[in-house]
Amino acid sequence: METAPAIGIDVGGTKIAGALVAADGRLLAETRHESPATDVAAILGTIVNLVDELRQHTGEAPAGVGVAAAGFVAEDRSTIYFAPNLAWRSEKIGVELNERLGCNVVVENDANAAAWGEYRFGGHDDSGGELLALTIGTGIGGGLVHGGELVRGGFGIAGEVGHLRVEQNGRLCGCGQHGCWEQYGSGSALTRTTRKLVAARTDGSEHLLQRAGGDADAVTGPMIGEAAAAGDAFAKARLEELGTWIGIGAASLAAVLDPRLIVLGGGVSEIGEPLLEVVRRAFEANLPAAGFRPVAEIRIASLGNRAGVLGAADLSRPRAHD
Amino acid sequence: METAPAIGIDVGGTKIAGALVAADGRLLAETRHESPATDVAAILGTIVNLVDELRQHTGEAPAGVGVAAAGFVAEDRSTIYFAPNLAWRSEKIGVELNERLGCNVVVENDANAAAWGEYRFGGHDDSGGELLALTIGTGIGGGLVHGGELVRGGFGIAGEVGHLRVEQNGRLCGCGQHGCWEQYGSGSALTRTTRKLVAARTDGSEHLLQRAGGDADAVTGPMIGEAAAAGDAFAKARLEELGTWIGIGAASLAAVLDPRLIVLGGGVSEIGEPLLEVVRRAFEANLPAAGFRPVAEIRIASLGNRAGVLGAADLSRPRAHD
Repeated sequence: METAPAIGIDVGGTKIAGALVAADGRLLAETRHESPATDVAAILGTIVNLVDELRQHTGEAPAGVGVAAAGFVAEDRSTIYFAPNLAWRSEKIGVELNERLGCNVVVENDANAAAWGEYRFGGHDDSGGELLALTIGTGIGGGLVHGGELVRGGFGIAGEVGHLRVEQNGRLCGCGQHGCWEQYGSGSALTRTTRKLVAARTDGSEHLLQRAGGDADAVTGPMIGEAAAAGDAFAKARLEELGTWIGIGAASLAAVLDPRLIVLGGGVSEIGEPLLEVVRRAFEANLPAAGFRPVAEIRIASLGNRAGVLGAADLSRPRAHD
Repeated sequence: METAPAIGIDVGGTKIAGALVAADGRLLAETRHESPATDVAAILGTIVNLVDELRQHTGEAPAGVGVAAAGFVAEDRSTIYFAPNLAWRSEKIGVELNERLGCNVVVENDANAAAWGEYRFGGHDDSGGELLALTIGTGIGGGLVHGGELVRGGFGIAGEVGHLRVEQNGRLCGCGQHGCWEQYGSGSALTRTTRKLVAARTDGSEHLLQRAGGDADAVTGPMIGEAAAAGDAFAKARLEELGTWIGIGAASLAAVLDPRLIVLGGGVSEIGEPLLEVVRRAFEANLPAAGFRPVAEIRIASLGNRAGVLGAADLSRPRAHD
């Protein structure tokens, strides 16, 4: 295997992060820029700049460049079919970056990259190569490792777990459908629901309104987490609701995918143990054949928001995973 | 690879089927017995008899014996954790059969075995090794082939797709949960719903009641299929409902698993093209990012109810799939 460092890029809605990563997962250098969210040419320009910057930290040619982006990435690991938040449609960004950078570029769905990062470098060896990583923030992304390999599916777009339908005729989703899991179990769903309840002056929401400076729309996920940690019953009820939805969806996924380990990452995972405890309870209560089957372990992800760059860098290495 | 014929056994609720299968999938001999449904010792005795009977058709020792059963089969491919219709709980049937038969025995979930049979011998080479097979009858079983291998998951129980939750607080399922897909999209769901509507003398149901000799509880799936084929609007509406549920669940599965090909087997698939057309329509209408992504093909299974014995036999061959 190529031992030179590889470069991982994670294209988010508000910023683009880059890292130079050693073959063993050590982070050799990091950088990040604001993201010109919907302008494809500007995003590509920013990626080229980040790569050039990171290259200066090493005397070697990078083993590869991995680009993680929130979207449906084709099997060719270059084309983005659909990216709800980036306004990309059938963009062959891998081919274009390959030409501009003169090195091997691999594009990967951001949740897949994060799953791979957690699997390779997150200390989850007890998964036995059967791991489901959920990235829960604006939406719910998923990445499945099976037999020690990342599962891409037949068209490259496996793991779009946020679009599991959990309610018929449910809330509208950015994917064009209704009732997708991420409309109930994501960080956005948490803040949206909580803001509505606070704005309606629901009993018990006064404390959270006060935390938000009297503006319901200023309520954030971390605020809800902090209020819950401080014992606020209303905030705790919101986390209970969120965690229950996460557990319900995870139980459906376990029925289909049967991972040994489920890793929770993304912004919402920063709430930590209080949320995890609810998720575990709901997961176990909603598993088919509960009581007659092994139960996957659920834990918080280890690498925080660096899972994406670490995974993307590693995925760009020739033969590390194919 | 071992070239001797292998034996496949499919343990159903009403009968146990056995087949002697050549390495290339040719059926060399077949036999079937009544199933002593819930008596474990009697089922094992019947399996031993079937194997002995099939062995007489070949001069060679069989390459292996594969047993397909409706249940959650552990990683060890011997233990059945849970079998809702067979009253088996943590039975190590593989170990026991191995001792009694003196040859390599592999136990596999029946839908997994059927999926493998379809993949290996059903003429679905265009799946590129990425196939989801749904067995729709009493319940909905699933088997996933990924990278040309059967996916068993971390505990051996992957592919329990019938227990995808499609309705919160929905119909009670044999797995102990509510709202499982198989309570809406299976053959049992079709007959149950139809019988209720017929018993309630719903407008348009007269024709079907007549077909059933005036007894709503005598309505069967094939009767509904035949009435629909004969142009009966009430029966067609029931198939529309069933096919829509199948398509909705398949779309959720495609979001997660991303197969290139979905194969519909089981009793319900005998309705054929009229049902398939509804399933395809609902599937496409319910895919996330519809219009911006490739769409898996859906077709009827090729092997009928022999998929299980063919797949089980092949899975019992050393190294054919590991």
